[in-house]
Formats: sequence, C-alpha cells, structure tokens
Amino acid sequence: MKKLVAFLLVLLLAVAQMVAQPVRNEILLPVTDGFEVLKCDFHMHTVFSDGTVWPVVRVGEAWQEGLDAIAITDHLEYLPHRNHVTPSPSAPWEIAQKSAAATGIILIRGTEITKGMPPGHFNALFVKDEAKILNDDYVASLREAKAQGAFVLWNHPGWKAQAPAGAVWMPEHEALFREGLFSGIEVVNHNEWYPEVLGWALERDLTIMANSDVHDPVMNYLHLEKMERRPITLVFARERSEQGIREALDERRTVAWFRNMMMGEARWLGQLFKGAVTQRIITTGEKNTILQLTNHSDLEFTLSPAKEPGKVSQLPARSSVILQVPADKEGTPYLLNNLYSGPQKNLEISLPL
Amino acid sequence: MKKLVAFLLVLLLAVAQMVAQPVRNEILLPVTDGFEVLKCDFHMHTVFSDGTVWPVVRVGEAWQEGLDAIAITDHLEYLPHRNHVTPSPSAPWEIAQKSAAATGIILIRGTEITKGMPPGHFNALFVKDEAKILNDDYVASLREAKAQGAFVLWNHPGWKAQAPAGAVWMPEHEALFREGLFSGIEVVNHNEWYPEVLGWALERDLTIMANSDVHDPVMNYLHLEKMERRPITLVFARERSEQGIREALDERRTVAWFRNMMMGEARWLGQLFKGAVTQRIITTGEKNTILQLTNHSDLEFTLSPAKEPGKVSQLPARSSVILQVPADKEGTPYLLNNLYSGPQKNLEISLPL
Amino acid sequence: MKKLVAFLLVLLLAVAQMVAQPVRNEILLPVTDGFEVLKCDFHMHTVFSDGTVWPVVRVGEAWQEGLDAIAITDHLEYLPHRNHVTPSPSAPWEIAQKSAAATGIILIRGTEITKGMPPGHFNALFVKDEAKILNDDYVASLREAKAQGAFVLWNHPGWKAQAPAGAVWMPEHEALFREGLFSGIEVVNHNEWYPEVLGWALERDLTIMANSDVHDPVMNYLHLEKMERRPITLVFARERSEQGIREALDERRTVAWFRNMMMGEARWLGQLFKGAVTQRIITTGEKNTILQLTNHSDLEFTLSPAKEPGKVSQLPARSSVILQVPADKEGTPYLLNNLYSGPQKNLEISLPL
Amino acid sequence: MKKLVAFLLVLLLAVAQMVAQPVRNEILLPVTDGFEVLKCDFHMHTVFSDGTVWPVVRVGEAWQEGLDAIAITDHLEYLPHRNHVTPSPSAPWEIAQKSAAATGIILIRGTEITKGMPPGHFNALFVKDEAKILNDDYVASLREAKAQGAFVLWNHPGWKAQAPAGAVWMPEHEALFREGLFSGIEVVNHNEWYPEVLGWALERDLTIMANSDVHDPVMNYLHLEKMERRPITLVFARERSEQGIREALDERRTVAWFRNMMMGEARWLGQLFKGAVTQRIITTGEKNTILQLTNHSDLEFTLSPAKEPGKVSQLPARSSVILQVPADKEGTPYLLNNLYSGPQKNLEISLPL
Repeated sequence: MKKLVAFLLVLLLAVAQMVAQPVRNEILLPVTDGFEVLKCDFHMHTVFSDGTVWPVVRVGEAWQEGLDAIAITDHLEYLPHRNHVTPSPSAPWEIAQKSAAATGIILIRGTEITKGMPPGHFNALFVKDEAKILNDDYVASLREAKAQGAFVLWNHPGWKAQAPAGAVWMPEHEALFREGLFSGIEVVNHNEWYPEVLGWALERDLTIMANSDVHDPVMNYLHLEKMERRPITLVFARERSEQGIREALDERRTVAWFRNMMMGEARWLGQLFKGAVTQRIITTGEKNTILQLTNHSDLEFTLSPAKEPGKVSQLPARSSVILQVPADKEGTPYLLNNLYSGPQKNLEISLPL
Repeated sequence: MKKLVAFLLVLLLAVAQMVAQPVRNEILLPVTDGFEVLKCDFHMHTVFSDGTVWPVVRVGEAWQEGLDAIAITDHLEYLPHRNHVTPSPSAPWEIAQKSAAATGIILIRGTEITKGMPPGHFNALFVKDEAKILNDDYVASLREAKAQGAFVLWNHPGWKAQAPAGAVWMPEHEALFREGLFSGIEVVNHNEWYPEVLGWALERDLTIMANSDVHDPVMNYLHLEKMERRPITLVFARERSEQGIREALDERRTVAWFRNMMMGEARWLGQLFKGAVTQRIITTGEKNTILQLTNHSDLEFTLSPAKEPGKVSQLPARSSVILQVPADKEGTPYLLNNLYSGPQKNLEISLPL
Repeated sequence: MKKLVAFLLVLLLAVAQMVAQPVRNEILLPVTDGFEVLKCDFHMHTVFSDGTVWPVVRVGEAWQEGLDAIAITDHLEYLPHRNHVTPSPSAPWEIAQKSAAATGIILIRGTEITKGMPPGHFNALFVKDEAKILNDDYVASLREAKAQGAFVLWNHPGWKAQAPAGAVWMPEHEALFREGLFSGIEVVNHNEWYPEVLGWALERDLTIMANSDVHDPVMNYLHLEKMERRPITLVFARERSEQGIREALDERRTVAWFRNMMMGEARWLGQLFKGAVTQRIITTGEKNTILQLTNHSDLEFTLSPAKEPGKVSQLPARSSVILQVPADKEGTPYLLNNLYSGPQKNLEISLPL
Repeated sequence: MKKLVAFLLVLLLAVAQMVAQPVRNEILLPVTDGFEVLKCDFHMHTVFSDGTVWPVVRVGEAWQEGLDAIAITDHLEYLPHRNHVTPSPSAPWEIAQKSAAATGIILIRGTEITKGMPPGHFNALFVKDEAKILNDDYVASLREAKAQGAFVLWNHPGWKAQAPAGAVWMPEHEALFREGLFSGIEVVNHNEWYPEVLGWALERDLTIMANSDVHDPVMNYLHLEKMERRPITLVFARERSEQGIREALDERRTVAWFRNMMMGEARWLGQLFKGAVTQRIITTGEKNTILQLTNHSDLEFTLSPAKEPGKVSQLPARSSVILQVPADKEGTPYLLNNLYSGPQKNLEISLPL
C-alpha cells in the first residue's frame, strides 16, 4: 500500500510540477558543411535606456526562445528613465553576464549610437568602453567604435520616423561607408523589412542582419502562442563562440530570418535549403516523377514551378509534401517564394533535387 | 487595373500587418445575478524591488491577458537593484498610472510588507503612502496600513522558504488576526496552492485569493503558447471599478482560480458553475436521460458521479459533453472534481440540472 | 491513509482519462434580435457515393466541430464504390439518423444531382425520395425535387473542372432560375470562393451558401490543429429546428463564412458585427477618442478607416483592440475588410459605435 | 506596374492556397546505431468490418501523421455493415494499396481473428489469404495464419469487455504460446495501457506493441489540435521496408509509445534516450556541475534524481533544460519517470551523461 501511495504521489508530483521549470524551445536548423548556424539577435533594449526590462530578462528570453547569442544595445543618448535609473552605459552588459554564463547564451557587448537622420542609428558590437563612444559628433562616435574594434551596423534604414519616404542612401552614409565606419545593415528591424536595403547590402558587401529591436518583453510584441519568432540573424559560424560570430559577421556569412522569409546571398540561402530538405522518390513514371520533399528544420519553405507561379506548395517546419514533376532529363526549375536572394528575386532550385 | 492593384495592396497590407497591433485576449466568465466577475491579480513586482520589469509592463501584460485589475506590490524592505534604481516606494504606481488609464486596467495602489517568519509577508492594498508603512516593527507597519484604510492579506503562508513543513498559523498570526490587521489570505501563490490554508480562510472568514507574485515577465514563468494562465482572484463586484473591487474584497466575494482549479465558498463556486453551464436534454428514456452540458465560459470543469469517482468527464472551455444519467426523480449527485469548497471537499451538483 | 489514496487515485484517473471522451468545441456566435444563428453545412459525401467515410462520421464531425445542422448529399449518378457498396440513395440518411438523434445534430435529408456543365451540380435538400429524383434529364430531376418540396441550390458554379474560365451564368441556368427550379447558390465550396457568384446571388435574390463538399474525413482537408474551420452557412433561424432552417433558407437569411471572411447581404453582416462587438470608451479628448472594441464571438474582424485602407486592425475571436478615432461629431467611417456585402464591397460602419 | 501586379498576385496566391495541399507532419525520432526507428500502427479498421472509413483513409491519416507503416486489420467474423458493404476480407488491403504506393506508406496485409475470451482477439500480419484464416475454431485459425507465415499478436489482453478484472493469462493462452501460435502482444491498445502485460512480454519474450485499434477517423478520438498522437509501435529496423519491419518484429526490437510514455526492454529504451538527448556542460564547480540536456526528438522525457523522486524535470520535444548535479565522480542516478522497462520500473541513467 505504501509503495502504491509513493508511486501515485510521484506521478502526481510529475503532473503538478509540469510547468514549474523553464524550458528552452530549441530551433531546429540545418546542418551545413563546416558551419554551425547560430541564431542571433544583435539589437535590443532594457530599462537602462528606453526599454522596459531588466537586463537579465533579455538573456532569459533568448534562452527560452532557443537563441545562441544576443547583444543588448541600449541607447547612449536617449535615457527617458534617468529620473529613476542611474545612467550607466556598461550596466546592462555587466548585469546580464551572470545569467549568460549560467545559461550558455553568448552575450556580446554592444551599444546604440542614436542620432537624427542623417545618419540615423548605428549599433556598435564587441565594444570595450561604451561611455567613450558617446559623442555629439556622430563621426567621432563611429571612429571611436572602430578604434575599439567594434563591428558596426546601420539600424533600420527604412524606419518611417526617420525615413518617411523609404530608406535613402545619403551622401553622409556614403562617406561613412567609404571610411569603413560601418559594415553591416539591418534589412529587417522589429516588424519591418526593407527590400531595397537588401539590394544595397548585396551591391556593397554589407553584412545582412535581422534584429528584433525589442523594447518590451518579447511576449508584448510577439504572438508566442502562435509560435511567432522574433527577427533573427542566422550566422554561419565555424564555432559556437563570440569569436566564431565575429569572424562570420566580418565574412558576411549571414541570412536574415523574419517570419517565414529568409533574405541573403544565394549561396547561404542555398545552404539552408540544401541542409534542411531531403528527397525521396516515390514513383518514377514515363511522364512524371512523384517525389516527397521532407523539411527536417524549423524553417519553412514555399515553392512553385518557375513557369507556374500560382501553383504554390507549402513545406512547413518538420513536414513533407508530395510533388509531381515532369520526367525531364533537365529537371524542372522551381522558385522558393519566401527566400529572397535579391529585392525581387527568389532562390531557384531544380527538381528532382 | 489600378483598382485591382489597390485592392491587392490592401489585402497584402492586411496580411503583413497582422501581428503589428497588440490584442487583448478576453477571458470569458459567467454572468452572475447582480455581479460582474472581475479577473484580478493583487501581487506582483517590478525593478523597483526584486522584479525585472518596468511598471508599465505589468499593465500591458494584464491588458493582453484579459485581466481587469492589478496591484503592483513591490517590497518595501528588499531592494536588490538599489545600486541602479533609486528607491521610491510610490514610483511603480505613479509610473504605471498612465498606461492603466490608456487601457482601462484598474490599478490598485499597493505594497508588500516583507518580514521574516513569523509573520512573513503581507500585501497592503488601497494604500495612500507606502513610505509611511515601512517600519522595522511589523505590527507598526500593519497598523499604519490599517490607518491608511488598506486591505491587507497574508501572502503565501505555505511558501517553503518560510514554512518548510507547510503553513503554520502561529500565535503571532492569531494576534494580528484578532486585532483585525489582515483580512485576506493567499490560498494560491505563483505556482503553489495550499489546501490547508483554504480551510483556515473558510473557518476564519478571510478573503480567499490567488495571486501570481510574478517577478519576471509573465512569459518567463507561464507557457503562454499552451494557453496557461497566471493565478487569478475572481472578484464578484457590483461594478467594474476600484470601489467595486474593494467592496467585494471586504465582503469576501472571491474565488481563487489556478490552472484548472477553483477554490472558494460553495456559494460562489456554485454561481460560477451555474452561470457557465447550460443543459440541453437530448433524449428522455425510461431508464436513462441523455443530456448535453455546454460550458460557455473559459473556465474548465471536471465532473464525475459521486458514487463513481473514476468515471470522469471533462468539460473544457467553450465546449459540450454528452452524459447519460439515470431517469431518477431525485436526480444524480455529481462532484465537480476541480472545484474545491474545502481542503478535501468538492462542489456537489445534481444532474439533470 | 486510505482516504488519501482514494483522493490521489481520483485525481490520477481525472488526468489519465482526459482524452477518453469526445468533446464538442462550441463556436461562439453573436446573439441577434429575434434569431439564433445556426452553423450549417449542406454539402458532403460518404462511401455511398465518392466519399470515404461511413455516414455516422459526418454527424460525429459536425458535433465535435460545433455545427447545428448538416445535409449528407451523396451523388445520385456517380458511384465509384459500387463494386463494394450496394447503391442505395437513401442509406446515408437512414444510417446517420440514430447518431443525429443521439447528439442533437439536425440532419437534413438531401442528395446531389450530378450533371455535366451546363447545368453542373445541384443539391436538393429536404427531399422525400432520392431515388425518384435520379433521371438522365436534369430538368426532370429538378422538377421532381421541386415536386417533393425540396430546397435546391446550384453547387460550386466556379469549380474549375466545369468552369475553367470562371463561373458563367448560361442560358440553361437562366431557364432553370425562371422556372424556380433552384433558389440557392454556393458562393463558397470546399476551399474556393467565387466573388462574381456573390454578385449574382445579390442581384437575383438567391440564398447565399458556403458548404464544405467534404469527401474525406474533415481532418484530411483542414488543419484542425491550427483551429481551421470548414466553410459554414450561417443561418438566421427563428428556432433551432429543421423547420426553422427551412424557413430561413426560403427567406434568404444566411451568411457564408469561410476562413476569416463573411459574405452576404449587408443587413445580415451588420447583425453579425453588431451582435458580436461591443465598445468601451476609454478616454475622450478634444481631438481624439480612445475606445476599446471587444469581439465576444468566434468570428474574426479586420477593419480600417475608409480613408486609410492600409491602417488595418485585427480583432480576432474573443479579443479586444484599442483604437484612436477623431473626436468628430459625424463619426469616422471604417470598412470591415473581411465582410463582403458585394464582390468588391466591404461592410461599412462608423466609429465610435 | 504589370510586374508589381504579378508579384502581388503570386504573394496572394501563396497566402490563399496555404491550406490547399495536404502536408505530412514528420515525427522526429532519434538516430540509433544501425537502426532506423519506424513509426508503425498494426491495428485498425474500416467499413469492411466495424470501422467507419474507406481503406484509403487509413493510408492518408498515416501519411499526414508521419507514420511509416500500417496494417489494416478488419475483423474476419464481425461485419455489422454487411447489409450495405459486400463482405470481402481482402478488399481493404487491395483498395488501399494504390494510396500506399503513392505516398510511400508501407502497407502490411493483415486481419483480425475475433473470438470470445478465451482466447480473445488476435491480429495476423503479413498474411496471404485472409479468407482461409476464417474458422469457427480459433486454434485452426491461428494454425492457418502460422502456415501462411503470419506474425501474430494478442490484442488488448486487458480490454474490459473481455477482461473485466484485468488481463489474465489463461491456460488457453499458455497452450497457444507453447505451440508458437502468437509472438507479439499489445501492452497498449487505443487509450488503455496494461502494466501487467508489459511484465508478461518481458518474461516470455513477446514482441511489445502499442496500436491504435482505431475505428473512426483518427480525429474523432484524438485531440489533434493539442498535438496528441495515436499509440505507436516504434520498430528498430535495419531498413525501411516490409521485410525490415518483419525482421525487427521477429527479433523483438520494438518499443510501445503511448502519450508521453514509452514501454519496452531497457536496451531499446536506452537507445531512444541516448539517441535523442545530448548534453552541454555549462559550468563545472567544486560542488556542482550545471549542465544542459537537449532533446532533439519529438519524444518527451521526464526525469528525477533516483533519491528525490519529487524533483521532476520535464524535457519536452525539441527542448532543453538546465540541471544542477553534484560534482560527484560516480555520477548521480536519475530515473526516467515515463520510460517503463518493467511494470513498475523506470529506466535509470546517470548524470552527467
């Protein structure tokens, strides 16, 4: 009897405590040749500028959402909570470090240089002394960031508050770019994506990024119950480390992931598709081949024959679809409608694979 | 052509902006005779004590989750962020007021008196000056709260850190109770519920409460994607207002709602069931009646015949079940397994209704 | 001890049996003045023609999905399973009756007259003898249906297999219409909707319908895990009965509901919106009024100011949104983007309500 | 302009057709040394006995749910639809073959020998002529099945209708077992699991199975919207083929998977855990090691220290948890509470891995 009670109690405890412990929802990404694909968000805020969370929250959210790395990038210049929170540009990084160590989240030290347009806002990542970067002169700020060895990106070039008619590459940006004062750019920020900026990035060899710029707790802007994800920069790293990320950013091995879309260079988009999707031939007839495509990842793909754009097939996360393609020696070209290798250009593949 | 383009653009915009605007998920509760059932949480923290969010977040969360009223109750005595956040016991309420006004959330001014055991922690609600309540002597604190007209509750009496062997009603509590220094008690706190405390509340006419005591963003402790809800105190109010809530608390018209369980006086539990569930007779035979019970609310009910406790029927939110009951003039007694009118007592009903 | 064991066992049983009993998911619809809004599907198949389920499945699905009434409408002429299933046009109705009685689903006796185009397929509802309707001459079929007092609808006029260039109102349809041989029409069938057919229905006073035409189990064509619903004909009935439905169909008191869209006459669309949505004024300023719209139903609404079509607000099932509208005496016109009172016409409302 | 319209149309089509095409939800299972883990269900019915679906539905469901192999096992003796459906024991297999070929589902030819207790019901798999097996004498039936080379299992030994006091191993079963007339047994059937039968299987070297015995469409008994799965027999096969499955059944390389539980021999349970879960050491201290366990599969694990059974950690599908274990050279024993290597015995592991 006692044994039974004990057994029942254990079962009940198991039931009762089901929700007690936080869980990290892993994001399944393709394995690629030689690279680990890291899930990163390089833009977010805390109460130390105009955000509404304590720095440790950013680490906890990242861990629960399955990210690998984040940068907290509070505004240097804009401190609306200063009546209550003592200004301290390094505090977010210092405070969050312990949580990062306890969860294995890679915490990149960063800050946001916050100017009117031109040139707008820039994030400096891998900084050493935020306070020194603060300067009324934006060129001076960016030069100091460079002197500290920072990786600098231009944030939300198409943000309506600063670019009401769409993103504009002004002479000031050209000057900064020529001096090498920034080398990355957000093609996605928060809930906006800027197709024209993707074009700029590809033409000028800028590192492509998608960041959340989240100010509130993530749940206040995402429908987590619908499994929405924040914008994520996928980083093709040689190792899961701060250095690995830095090297990948410098080498522009990134893809922007936003809702069900991915934007980037064709080679990296191709790696994602190739690593995520396998094929099984079901039947081979004289006229047609029936094949099953299986997506082993949490990415989502939408494809249609290049010549029949309306014939769309969805390949959601961890699922398969069956397609009939002509038994043609050449293969049939398909477009991946949600993978953008240019502002109006979709990645092309050939089926059977 | 232009018209078509415009039409398509509008459709696309509709799709694209689907996630842009926050939405409040309403909780459907039964209509009861003469009362509106308000969803309240009277215990939570911000960066102004040991929480991790800015006060406005508490209002935003409450609005999104469908609550009617909250009290932010930061610790008076425990301020681990004081190196960065200037101590200010009234700041959370002052800061959050604007958001509350903009969303219609009723924000009750409150604070937490934080002492070792005995007597433990107490929340004072409807306070006028938090700073005056701060006092090394807990009796003095509680007397000041009373002098301000506060409604005071004993928090988490069974919290393991202070009550490792379970909740204990000590002589100190008896003294405070006799002096009228507290009149409510948490039978549920965060993710714990204390059956024995329900017994105390019913014996001593204390107002029954379930509160979240949330420190992090709600999403860090709830699986919102599984539609989990925080602990909620259901308040039977004559009007949706601060005064309406106060009157209901003073009159002990509350039910604690935690996961799928409800705890409280039989009369209020009965009102919830009666207001939520209707019946349709499908067929009446000589031996049996087939009836359909429909639950129109977001509450959940689990019931079984009093004599066959293993024959359990689930009646989830907004759903119906079909039951067969004996065609007995007396009706058949059923127990609502998840409605606790006592520590080990379930609400009883008779079917057909 | 025994008591504890018993208590634990009951709890465990409750957990263990959670999935054992089927549950009906209720669909919350607005209450309207004088009418009950019934959820109906008047087109579906079983193994007795080219479907893949036994007739009782249609009743079970309807019950679980929260429908009120269905008609099983197997093809009279097309019987691909005849080698195994003995042809019997009345069998589906006869077999399903018992389940209908046991669950309270209203089962309308029906059949499908299945001809090439013109005139295509027609459903006859409320028939008395299916076999008599079977006739090579479609006019004779429809006249017999009329003689039996049937309500007849034209099915999927835009079905690509029969109308590759879109729905066409041919002379044959005109002749049938003038003779009064059909009085309803599907503006939605399965996963297609035909805006031009909505125009026909409004011009010619045909009863508007949305039906599933499901052949497989519902789950094989719907993503139930994403809460997708089949196409539903909303019927404004004076009572929940076969007669109540018949009267409503004859009086054209219907709305087609398909995914998040509703199509029908403005007066019925207006009733749905008015019955589903309430308003709370949050603040009234000199320039603007802030108001909260609450949708108490399982319908979904998408709205935008008539002059700013891109400023879209979502009002999902059982949720609220906050809107800011000009404090204008006249009110501000809004369009309900997903409520179609014409092929390219949206229902208009004025805010504040 | 035309280009833009085309682009918009494509996007809209993508949105509009999202639900049009069926999708297979893949189940992620661990890779194991030398084996592919196949997801199989060897027990189900159609309209050809007392089921309610056409045989092709069973293939479609299996494909959508991510299964690899099924056996349709209609009753030989019980044919309640015989008034409408012509008896034909081979028809289900014959009819379903085309769908199986078109989707890659492995369709095993089977039938159910349906007798009173003793000995109850038995499934014969890999049969050649169902009709020959039909016999009033159950021994004769089972001998014929054996003569055809069938793999035979005892179905639902604990089914209440036949075993009201729980499963009983009667002399008749002993006789059949000794003659080698069955070699598998269901420890799980539909929504029941029989711990005592797991004991029998382990003692007598019977192949352990979990089957759905589904009669209705799967959605009528599962809450698919909650991601419930049917009972599945996990088969450790050397190749994904009918032969591969047969060999694995003969060699007893199976695990029963039911809700979040797995039952089987410790070696196969161990392979599942080992193949599904990896570890990352986060920090190593003098007293404690902090480690993260990641579950890469769609299985779910629940574990607790062997000495603290109440300290339960959940490791849901595709997620991670962080655990703190003593820095002990020996490792700390943990029990996997939901993996049963015996009726009341849980698989034990040691952490760190």
